[in-house]
Amino acid sequence: MSVDWLDEPAKQPSFTAFEQARERQGQLTKPPGSLGRLEACAITLAGMQDRPDPQLNNIGITVFAADHGIANAGVSAFPQDVTGQMVANFAAGGAAISVLARSLGANLEVVDVGTVNGPVELPGVINDHVGHGTSDFSQQDAMTQTQLEQALNAGRASALRTIESGAQLFIGGDMGIANTTAAAAISCALLRADPEELAGPGTGLNAEGVSHKAKVIAEALSRYTGLYETPLEALRCVGGFEIAALVGAYLTCAQQGLPVMVDGFITSAAALVAVRHQPSVGEWFFFSHNSAEPGHKAILKVLVAEPLLDLGMRLGEGSGAATAVPILRLACDLHNGMATFADAGVSEG
Amino acid sequence: MSVDWLDEPAKQPSFTAFEQARERQGQLTKPPGSLGRLEACAITLAGMQDRPDPQLNNIGITVFAADHGIANAGVSAFPQDVTGQMVANFAAGGAAISVLARSLGANLEVVDVGTVNGPVELPGVINDHVGHGTSDFSQQDAMTQTQLEQALNAGRASALRTIESGAQLFIGGDMGIANTTAAAAISCALLRADPEELAGPGTGLNAEGVSHKAKVIAEALSRYTGLYETPLEALRCVGGFEIAALVGAYLTCAQQGLPVMVDGFITSAAALVAVRHQPSVGEWFFFSHNSAEPGHKAILKVLVAEPLLDLGMRLGEGSGAATAVPILRLACDLHNGMATFADAGVSEG
Repeated sequence: MSVDWLDEPAKQPSFTAFEQARERQGQLTKPPGSLGRLEACAITLAGMQDRPDPQLNNIGITVFAADHGIANAGVSAFPQDVTGQMVANFAAGGAAISVLARSLGANLEVVDVGTVNGPVELPGVINDHVGHGTSDFSQQDAMTQTQLEQALNAGRASALRTIESGAQLFIGGDMGIANTTAAAAISCALLRADPEELAGPGTGLNAEGVSHKAKVIAEALSRYTGLYETPLEALRCVGGFEIAALVGAYLTCAQQGLPVMVDGFITSAAALVAVRHQPSVGEWFFFSHNSAEPGHKAILKVLVAEPLLDLGMRLGEGSGAATAVPILRLACDLHNGMATFADAGVSEG
Repeated sequence: MSVDWLDEPAKQPSFTAFEQARERQGQLTKPPGSLGRLEACAITLAGMQDRPDPQLNNIGITVFAADHGIANAGVSAFPQDVTGQMVANFAAGGAAISVLARSLGANLEVVDVGTVNGPVELPGVINDHVGHGTSDFSQQDAMTQTQLEQALNAGRASALRTIESGAQLFIGGDMGIANTTAAAAISCALLRADPEELAGPGTGLNAEGVSHKAKVIAEALSRYTGLYETPLEALRCVGGFEIAALVGAYLTCAQQGLPVMVDGFITSAAALVAVRHQPSVGEWFFFSHNSAEPGHKAILKVLVAEPLLDLGMRLGEGSGAATAVPILRLACDLHNGMATFADAGVSEG
């Protein structure tokens, strides 16, 4: 399967729809700017959707799950089996993202990109299994070039299905024990940052565990040269299948013109890879929340991203992005549903 | 009409339901604490609602509208007529809070507590008109003791109607040209703060306008002695009818055990008066958002309140509180709908 699509630039949002939406915001019965970021969200979304009345009825959520060889280095509070168990929980409707998807009326797709004991064969789980987890990147490259391309294509395929379904917003989620270690390694490589600064507690490491995790990342990164220059190569060497799938999905969404709500640390690492590979992609991202994971702040800073929420969440699965959807929806409702000063006979200031 | 009820203490939230909810959170299929503040919201609400499975299907929103004599001092970017015009806009469904109420499926009540040309006689507007706006507090007390009591009772009556309707959360909103000046004056009195620090642009004053507003407040406050000791007296001397109604509504909700989502600057000034009058009331408040208005920060600090959202909103009407409702709803859905580790057969860390 080809990855020729990787280098296509992002679609350009509509300046006309953006301007129409901006003009309408100025006519609504409120002091100019008084709805704060809700105004900007509606206007930005109008430009992305190329319509002056942005809509968010149809949301597509995909959770990509995969395992990480680096889990063997003792960097997670949970055993590796949990990845596959959680895939079953997603499919059964009991996980946080399952509940959120139901509450939002969103479509939830679950893709097994490489659980260690998988593929998980359950109704509702898509099998795009690239391998039984990545290799332990403290010992060798996390994945081969072929595996990287398969995982990128798995993400692209999911994004294309989401577009086909008529979704107006894409949310990617992640599940993978030890994936904060992979995301921190990618971030350290691309941001030239110290693992001591970006490694965090993940699902619940104590201070000693975090310190060990940072050391594992630092030692692994010292094995690679030239990693800093090529985002996809950093992804291949220290990333994960689900992170690569997210990169593929984000690139595809931006190329096809589907707005993306980025979740937390893992997905932001994928967003960073995507933007470094193809800078125009960044125009298609909303950032949903500040994760409690320390590496997230560093990525957001570099991407000049200001997330909508700051609720101390650090679950992944796309849960933070889903939680921000109602904010965007209310922004659309206000934009589309409020009266203008002229309509309502209200005096302008 | 009596105000004997003013000194009733707040109801005590249920410790049993709180503990049951806390225990359940620890069993859900996620790393402990990984849903951040959503966990605390669900647990707190469980305690308030005295049930381990908190519910937010039924939301009651009341916007209290009134005019302010202090508008004559040139402290607002909008003419005073706008208050009554916006009451009509609320009733017609074109205002921000009207749109938000529809989106949330919430009941919206509009109470004219004292528009300058009112009472506004329109279907859907409740007439609890205390006077044609307050007196100009730079010249004399904003209201008489009788007017204060009438306005407090108007708020209580609305809260009681909301409780009667079966609401599970109360949102109070405000509309009143120049009411950021009244709210800043109350805050300065109760917090012993400098008007230069708490006065803000409101609906859109420039720097010169803000400076003038601060001077008006400082001069007015210098007329009153002993104001700092009695929150209701501060409310009477420099407050507004809609702010007094909010105080009455908040006290009543807390006494009757209905959780409150506080909006922005004006409503937080009302919350401050309520808490200073009756400290136990504070246990019934959620704080929705950080207003862009500078006085808000000072109140939040004193109330040790951490709002859920920070979106640069500064509209009032209850709009920020309404925008935070979906966050609380998702917190409830997650709390009630997620599988436990035992249910899902997922290994605990």
